[in-house]
Amino acid sequence: METLLRRCQIRSQILFFLFMHLQLIGSGAAAQVVTSRGTHGNYLTIQLGSIRYCFPHRTHDVCFFSGAHLNPVYSLSLCVLGRHPWKKLPLYSLSHLVGAFLGAATVYLQYYDAIQTFSGGELLVAGPNATAGIFCSYPADHLSFWGGLVDQVVATALFLLCCVALEDQRNGPLPDGLHPVLVGALILTMGVSMGSNCGFPLNPARDLGPRLFTFVAGWGEEVFKAGGGWWWVPIVAPFVGGLLGTVTYELLIEAHHQTTPSEKKTCSGKMGKQTHSQHIF
Amino acid sequence: METLLRRCQIRSQILFFLFMHLQLIGSGAAAQVVTSRGTHGNYLTIQLGSIRYCFPHRTHDVCFFSGAHLNPVYSLSLCVLGRHPWKKLPLYSLSHLVGAFLGAATVYLQYYDAIQTFSGGELLVAGPNATAGIFCSYPADHLSFWGGLVDQVVATALFLLCCVALEDQRNGPLPDGLHPVLVGALILTMGVSMGSNCGFPLNPARDLGPRLFTFVAGWGEEVFKAGGGWWWVPIVAPFVGGLLGTVTYELLIEAHHQTTPSEKKTCSGKMGKQTHSQHIF
Amino acid sequence: METLLRRCQIRSQILFFLFMHLQLIGSGAAAQVVTSRGTHGNYLTIQLGSIRYCFPHRTHDVCFFSGAHLNPVYSLSLCVLGRHPWKKLPLYSLSHLVGAFLGAATVYLQYYDAIQTFSGGELLVAGPNATAGIFCSYPADHLSFWGGLVDQVVATALFLLCCVALEDQRNGPLPDGLHPVLVGALILTMGVSMGSNCGFPLNPARDLGPRLFTFVAGWGEEVFKAGGGWWWVPIVAPFVGGLLGTVTYELLIEAHHQTTPSEKKTCSGKMGKQTHSQHIF
Amino acid sequence: METLLRRCQIRSQILFFLFMHLQLIGSGAAAQVVTSRGTHGNYLTIQLGSIRYCFPHRTHDVCFFSGAHLNPVYSLSLCVLGRHPWKKLPLYSLSHLVGAFLGAATVYLQYYDAIQTFSGGELLVAGPNATAGIFCSYPADHLSFWGGLVDQVVATALFLLCCVALEDQRNGPLPDGLHPVLVGALILTMGVSMGSNCGFPLNPARDLGPRLFTFVAGWGEEVFKAGGGWWWVPIVAPFVGGLLGTVTYELLIEAHHQTTPSEKKTCSGKMGKQTHSQHIF
Repeated sequence: METLLRRCQIRSQILFFLFMHLQLIGSGAAAQVVTSRGTHGNYLTIQLGSIRYCFPHRTHDVCFFSGAHLNPVYSLSLCVLGRHPWKKLPLYSLSHLVGAFLGAATVYLQYYDAIQTFSGGELLVAGPNATAGIFCSYPADHLSFWGGLVDQVVATALFLLCCVALEDQRNGPLPDGLHPVLVGALILTMGVSMGSNCGFPLNPARDLGPRLFTFVAGWGEEVFKAGGGWWWVPIVAPFVGGLLGTVTYELLIEAHHQTTPSEKKTCSGKMGKQTHSQHIF
Repeated sequence: METLLRRCQIRSQILFFLFMHLQLIGSGAAAQVVTSRGTHGNYLTIQLGSIRYCFPHRTHDVCFFSGAHLNPVYSLSLCVLGRHPWKKLPLYSLSHLVGAFLGAATVYLQYYDAIQTFSGGELLVAGPNATAGIFCSYPADHLSFWGGLVDQVVATALFLLCCVALEDQRNGPLPDGLHPVLVGALILTMGVSMGSNCGFPLNPARDLGPRLFTFVAGWGEEVFKAGGGWWWVPIVAPFVGGLLGTVTYELLIEAHHQTTPSEKKTCSGKMGKQTHSQHIF
Repeated sequence: METLLRRCQIRSQILFFLFMHLQLIGSGAAAQVVTSRGTHGNYLTIQLGSIRYCFPHRTHDVCFFSGAHLNPVYSLSLCVLGRHPWKKLPLYSLSHLVGAFLGAATVYLQYYDAIQTFSGGELLVAGPNATAGIFCSYPADHLSFWGGLVDQVVATALFLLCCVALEDQRNGPLPDGLHPVLVGALILTMGVSMGSNCGFPLNPARDLGPRLFTFVAGWGEEVFKAGGGWWWVPIVAPFVGGLLGTVTYELLIEAHHQTTPSEKKTCSGKMGKQTHSQHIF
Repeated sequence: METLLRRCQIRSQILFFLFMHLQLIGSGAAAQVVTSRGTHGNYLTIQLGSIRYCFPHRTHDVCFFSGAHLNPVYSLSLCVLGRHPWKKLPLYSLSHLVGAFLGAATVYLQYYDAIQTFSGGELLVAGPNATAGIFCSYPADHLSFWGGLVDQVVATALFLLCCVALEDQRNGPLPDGLHPVLVGALILTMGVSMGSNCGFPLNPARDLGPRLFTFVAGWGEEVFKAGGGWWWVPIVAPFVGGLLGTVTYELLIEAHHQTTPSEKKTCSGKMGKQTHSQHIF
């Protein structure tokens, strides 16, 4: 029990570092485009920053660190499906949150001069000189409340469905190292197809942590008031969508198994090796 | 017989889901660029949405689902070459169509606010506020009827030729998982080189399904009248081009076999393993 | 002897097809950007068309076609180094040329409407409505004769050096299928770093074939007069650069072998397997 | 001893060539965008030039050249950690410097016409017609001295941490050849997220060598005076950041080892194979 706790704590520390990097590169790409007023990048370069997912994942493999998840939505999905103990969830989620908070702080430090110059020293959430969007999700002007909710549920459902499919070991042998590349491509794809409504948060910890940072760093309570209290949508909707996507995949697989009993065996055999221990994003 | 029918039905269900995702990401990328008037993406990001092909394919592998094809053109080519039973063709094509229809509906749902704001509530097929082009192919102003036909035949012929080549198992060992990446790159390549005439539909089901959706969803019969009754060209021309490409490849291979009988044996040996069961796009 | 001749002929046929595709996708990307006046792509999408190199190569592997080369520069380099029979060179080069010619014709057919609309029916080599640059290389306004020569020699030398390095089997095991991806990335890289002077032709056949096509198709003798008789530079300079690059690589390897005799053996062992038969681009 | 010296010298020669290519492609991409005033590329194409890192690395593998490092920061980190002899450091660093100097000279030769036309013959370090930024790092107008220092330390720390992680052999089997692709993606990612402050130099030799070249080639002593004597920041800060990143990674690993002794053994086993001989960038 004590060992488990110790391992959890150290895992949390590593998760915290991984999350910092994730946050750092992702928000950095946005900071660069915003503060250079588009001369140093465009919408596409922000999405390319999404390749960031490749590297934390890789780092993780290095650490031989089983059971790490970089997205609380994914952790929750596994808990619901009974593949992950519920008791680890709180500590994991907390370290996600703290990592994202500190990652946002590092980005602010690195782009402090640029943000000050761009905003004229005034940290705003809305308007042409707004800088809060560098750190977390705000809805586009055209987006209604329900529209945002639907957008997030659909996007996260598709994302989780693809993630689960990519990780499924019943899948033939996917070369090591190609996995993060495909996840990176998936996120890039989603960014170019589902990012204009509210920036496809997908990850509650990655959204709330930086929002808390901007709250304390000078953007003030406007970060929670903006968009008619929008802040909780990118936290709640991804969980709904994530469960939907995971369950859809499971049902597809079930349907398949019923009809092909001979293949089922092969699947089960591979299933035994499927430890679900390397899911991290 | 009954089992075959059951399997076909379930396959159709999965194909329907795959197709929805395909449609969702592809059209989403277009919706994002159109409704943001170019601030959230450009022509390149739409093409990058083509990486979508990687993921449905992967999902398929996961399902151990033999015989699935995501493009009716490819299914027909295999039927003509005698490698696929004709009787499966109708059900497959129908599920393609229904999946594409529902995928388009989901995109409309997700971008409802954005499309309403962009178009001022009026769903138009042509003009500066047109939104029908998000969902399916319309010819560019400069394109003549014959020009469009040639464009589609050439593009699909090249596409199918490359697809068949990539899948040919006589090919040395292609690492698992790299295949969808190469297909994604192929489609990206074709998008940047053959997309400006009429948007390289390549896939009849992916074009007709969404067109039917826009027809019932409020764009009206103009979706069939536009471009001088253009709608049937992206349905018929890809079949012609697809057959042309497949036959060209077969002839190239035949020519080769006649001259290198020693290699032919090796090929045949590998040919035995070539089940043609994993062709999906 | 007769068999050799027959094989050569059929090889030439396949090379001709491969070259047509190469030309088709490469020039198509340029046609799309030029005729849409930049709305359907930009400088980057033209370079992305360079991923075309992946697919012909792949097709080649499929055919088990040893000894095929898609770039006469590379063929010549191998002849000079004594690794390829000189007598095959003329037929190969001819089929390159014919393939590139017909590829250019297909692009013209596919973009006939677009080119007519863009140019107002007048096929020009220079000026704001020029369309000849879609098909082959012309020097930028700032480029002097010697500048162009240096540019081409440096670019092709670097290109060949990297190609030879990538193909060297003394190299550890490079996964099959990754090779074309790396060559594609190499060409993309060169396009973004060495393309603005005169469009990095790199390949004499790919430049001369389409130039001959534009000559007969209506652009007239201006295609040879433009740039002060520029046309022969992208034919001669790549050969000079290619030899330079190949020789540089050989010298680097030699220098290495002298100092590490123990490794040399290993190299030689692997060298035995190095048939140099799969070089195609 | 003499053999060691001879090997070092030859290694230095190869490093010098590799570095030239690195410099050539990287600076070439910048030269192209600057001198074409943005018509032949944009901020993204400059970053894509970063894929250059793939090819020198590959060349290196070919040469069976153990112990080569393309970044003095990395060499120093290994020396500090006791994995690399200190005495090799000076010769290595010198050949880096000379290679980068000559690479810059080649770029100037290749873009001589373009730079002369763009700048009107006047080689300037600042202002709208400045061309010095093609070759090495200068701070953006908004960047303070401390801001630049923090930017460089954070960026290089993250870079080295990811590099060390990617190379760690305790890591599961990473397919050969995928490594340079991932490093290329990493650098692309960093370019889009951390390049707008001062162009993410990351590599002291790649910054100082070209700066010395511009100093002698006509830009004059302004290259050292600009930005308030900025020149030494991209030389010193990467060393600080690199050590920070390497040490952080080592600590993460240590923390892990203490808790999972059973895995440690496996790690050590693999550790034996970990010769740290293929680190090159």
